[in-house]
Amino acid sequence: MNQHTLPTLETIRDAAARIAPHAMVTPVLRSDALDALAGARLHFKCENLQRGGAFKFRGACNAVWSLDDAAARRGVVTHSSGNHGSALALAAATRGIIAHVVVPEGAVQAKLELIARAGAVLHRCAPTQAAREAAAERVQRETGAVLVHPYADARVMAGQGTIALELLAQVPALDALITPLGGGGLAAGVAIAAHALRPGLPLFAAEPAGADDAARSLAAGRRVEIGVPDTLCDGLRAWVGVPNLQALREHTVEVITVSDEETIAAMRLIWRELKLVVEVSSATVLAAVLKARDHLAGQRIGLVITGGNVDLDALP
Amino acid sequence: MNQHTLPTLETIRDAAARIAPHAMVTPVLRSDALDALAGARLHFKCENLQRGGAFKFRGACNAVWSLDDAAARRGVVTHSSGNHGSALALAAATRGIIAHVVVPEGAVQAKLELIARAGAVLHRCAPTQAAREAAAERVQRETGAVLVHPYADARVMAGQGTIALELLAQVPALDALITPLGGGGLAAGVAIAAHALRPGLPLFAAEPAGADDAARSLAAGRRVEIGVPDTLCDGLRAWVGVPNLQALREHTVEVITVSDEETIAAMRLIWRELKLVVEVSSATVLAAVLKARDHLAGQRIGLVITGGNVDLDALP
Repeated sequence: MNQHTLPTLETIRDAAARIAPHAMVTPVLRSDALDALAGARLHFKCENLQRGGAFKFRGACNAVWSLDDAAARRGVVTHSSGNHGSALALAAATRGIIAHVVVPEGAVQAKLELIARAGAVLHRCAPTQAAREAAAERVQRETGAVLVHPYADARVMAGQGTIALELLAQVPALDALITPLGGGGLAAGVAIAAHALRPGLPLFAAEPAGADDAARSLAAGRRVEIGVPDTLCDGLRAWVGVPNLQALREHTVEVITVSDEETIAAMRLIWRELKLVVEVSSATVLAAVLKARDHLAGQRIGLVITGGNVDLDALP
Repeated sequence: MNQHTLPTLETIRDAAARIAPHAMVTPVLRSDALDALAGARLHFKCENLQRGGAFKFRGACNAVWSLDDAAARRGVVTHSSGNHGSALALAAATRGIIAHVVVPEGAVQAKLELIARAGAVLHRCAPTQAAREAAAERVQRETGAVLVHPYADARVMAGQGTIALELLAQVPALDALITPLGGGGLAAGVAIAAHALRPGLPLFAAEPAGADDAARSLAAGRRVEIGVPDTLCDGLRAWVGVPNLQALREHTVEVITVSDEETIAAMRLIWRELKLVVEVSSATVLAAVLKARDHLAGQRIGLVITGGNVDLDALP
């Protein structure tokens, strides 16, 4: 599979079969109190309860188990501020191969600990996109490890798309679906899987206002790179990937931007009402649904809760 | 049913059928990291995800729907520092009847809000067992409402016992079961149901060292009342009930006492590894399993996580 093409329903179903022995079928939870606030029926797909504490394990696991034995023996490498790094480390451990993870300075401590605990080789770098990519390329050159990009990778998008297969089996009657949006691996995978099963299903993505390059790119009709992202949502600071943006456009995913204040308020609601530890990036979806209350009233909405890896001593 | 007798497998199965339209079948979660710490395979039954945020909804719901129409019309009353009160309020709302809840001063704010939100009539009293019982009796006299005791009530114990039916269906291969222990409604109901299905299954209960009246009572062979309980576990301060103690003795439930320090450390582990918001009382079971590590090594253990109603701004 060319890693810059997009996955299909078939490759997403292959991914589901490939990760089934390793990944968890996460529960879907709901809350009368949150439904009342939203004026809608909300179904939360709880990927914070996924192995490694985030949905990223799905894509990483699919990528690791897609490799032939010769490639796998050389290991895998990625650059990640957190969840994709620990997911790749965990996935590599399920196959007994080495994972190299390039981590920019300033990553969340809880995520660094997860990466180290999973037995990956850590490589630190400056917190810029260029430094991340350069460091990952150096590791590739030196070790022959296979790059598993956090989001601009068809194997990764296919793995994330398995969430939509699962959610639509668990809650068949949905009027809309919403995911957080950073690099777009999740949003693209879910859009492709959801529309293959339910053509025309309204799809939304929640993006922090301080990292709204995808919203701007869709509005401008071309990929717009913003400056330094300014958001507490540490999982959503990446620029949207090229194939990812293409999928969002093809599937007319509507982006709703939310402020960090709105997201933090939504995060507190999730902790209080759903009894779930979620990281701030996860709460963008509820913030967006509450913001678009008038637009979504009365609908049955699937919301993907992406992760729960937070520093308990440094909550916003 | 005489409310001072004990439930049977039959009345617990009746309870399961009675509450099925209203209660949630809660998920069972696990964590490789917690298994490694415990040296055992841990299965957490997540009643913090139950309606109302605690297992108490089961017993309250069974009691409310056990009433004949004439009794139900007069409403129900209880005294509770929190979860049973809001559970009874929610359960009464499912039948459209009034709930009176006597709440001692000093209860957790999040629990008071839940009771009020469910539409119950609140009655405040001094934080002593005598004041609670006197206030509940006054409401009974004045309104004719039916008392639903938080734990010394066969209908309530039967409702709590449905947890064991569910857990043993979800994870049939268990070597031991542990619940927190306060008044003993949960521990007694679970012991009766579990032993009816699995005679001889080792049963444990976790009790705060600062409220260890049940451990002392079982050791002394008679009900020992301690002075003022001294524990942060606000859900486990009640003295064990008379029928509850009888059930613990008949089923040889082994009590493990844990310090608040051990429980708070376990609570942090649950937040971090299971991504669940749990109240401190819930964490006694993990604290106990970690304390009895040598004794329980290699076993498959079911742990009941009882609730998640915490003041997020006042975490210990």
